[in-house]
Amino acid sequence: MMHYPAPLQNVIEELKKLPGVGQRTAERLAFHLLNQPAAEVESLREALRALKERITLCRECCNFADVDGDGGSEGPGPRCAICRDPGRDRSVICVVSHPQELWKIEKSGGYQGLYHVLGGLISPLRDVHPEDLQIESLMRRLHRGSIREVILALDPTVEGEHTSLYLARQIKPLGVVITRIAQGVPIGRDLEFTDEATLSRALQGRVRVVL
Amino acid sequence: MMHYPAPLQNVIEELKKLPGVGQRTAERLAFHLLNQPAAEVESLREALRALKERITLCRECCNFADVDGDGGSEGPGPRCAICRDPGRDRSVICVVSHPQELWKIEKSGGYQGLYHVLGGLISPLRDVHPEDLQIESLMRRLHRGSIREVILALDPTVEGEHTSLYLARQIKPLGVVITRIAQGVPIGRDLEFTDEATLSRALQGRVRVVL
Repeated sequence: MMHYPAPLQNVIEELKKLPGVGQRTAERLAFHLLNQPAAEVESLREALRALKERITLCRECCNFADVDGDGGSEGPGPRCAICRDPGRDRSVICVVSHPQELWKIEKSGGYQGLYHVLGGLISPLRDVHPEDLQIESLMRRLHRGSIREVILALDPTVEGEHTSLYLARQIKPLGVVITRIAQGVPIGRDLEFTDEATLSRALQGRVRVVL
Repeated sequence: MMHYPAPLQNVIEELKKLPGVGQRTAERLAFHLLNQPAAEVESLREALRALKERITLCRECCNFADVDGDGGSEGPGPRCAICRDPGRDRSVICVVSHPQELWKIEKSGGYQGLYHVLGGLISPLRDVHPEDLQIESLMRRLHRGSIREVILALDPTVEGEHTSLYLARQIKPLGVVITRIAQGVPIGRDLEFTDEATLSRALQGRVRVVL
């Protein structure tokens, strides 16, 4: 059997490194790109260049930020669009592990405060310790004194629970209100298909029905 | 809701242009790329550059070819690895519509001859006419006289049948044997799930069982 020309094979190999992209998908994408005008492929290449060159971490909350983002009067480095937004409630910080979760919460439309992105979860097994995460920068923000509440919105997993507990212990002495997002049955799913741990948690967290 | 920083949003928009990539997949891929080392993304960008700069059409069969491919002694332009391979049977040409199908046949391992890639199928509805396809170059190859058989391996669709008929009429005066790939029930699929047109064609094309 004859193999693909090297430049085509290379693109297939590169695409296969992406999550969820196997041999067949990589081939389909590579052939598609080969058939596109050069300007289209160039436009993808340019977007990828800008992605790595222009995205940095917000100096406040460690969310992704555009390097061109206004850094404000204090300190160096850009701030993300949320930290720059004068309309946000600056007395609440929602702590998430990754920017993806921050945007998920933004899409839900139910939150108007600020965020803090840890960059992961504490996990001794994977050699991730508190000092590897953006915990010190969170504590610095809290020490400034204007924060009234910290909402912990971490994964409902062993690592997430462990990290929440660690953070709660660190934050408690500051007298800031610490809350965490509710755990229970997901909306729109049959109870029948909900796992036992979730059901048990939903029962523990039951709330009074007020008529 | 706050939107993604522009460089991230741009990559998502570019990825969404790819076949089979929707908003969620594009977001997942963009975040993945954002978390990769810059060298990884650069390596994808470089592969994409080479794809458009180094892949051209083989001057013989119109398959994709590396521009660095040896063009041989006659004529300008590179030849693909198949046309350059001295081990191939140079008396048979298999006609396909796109390079993807050529490689599919190569992977099947059942063919040792040469190919000719039309670049599409005749389709008056989509404004694709014989002169838009690589038919003239096919006829030039056949006129050179060393080809004994032309195998038509086009889609079993209205457009494929139409193109096969057109080609057969063009080639017939040259006295070359014209064949087409067998149509029938696909291997490994239950007869129950085979459509009627295919079954009817499979019955028409039945072959004698020799014991």
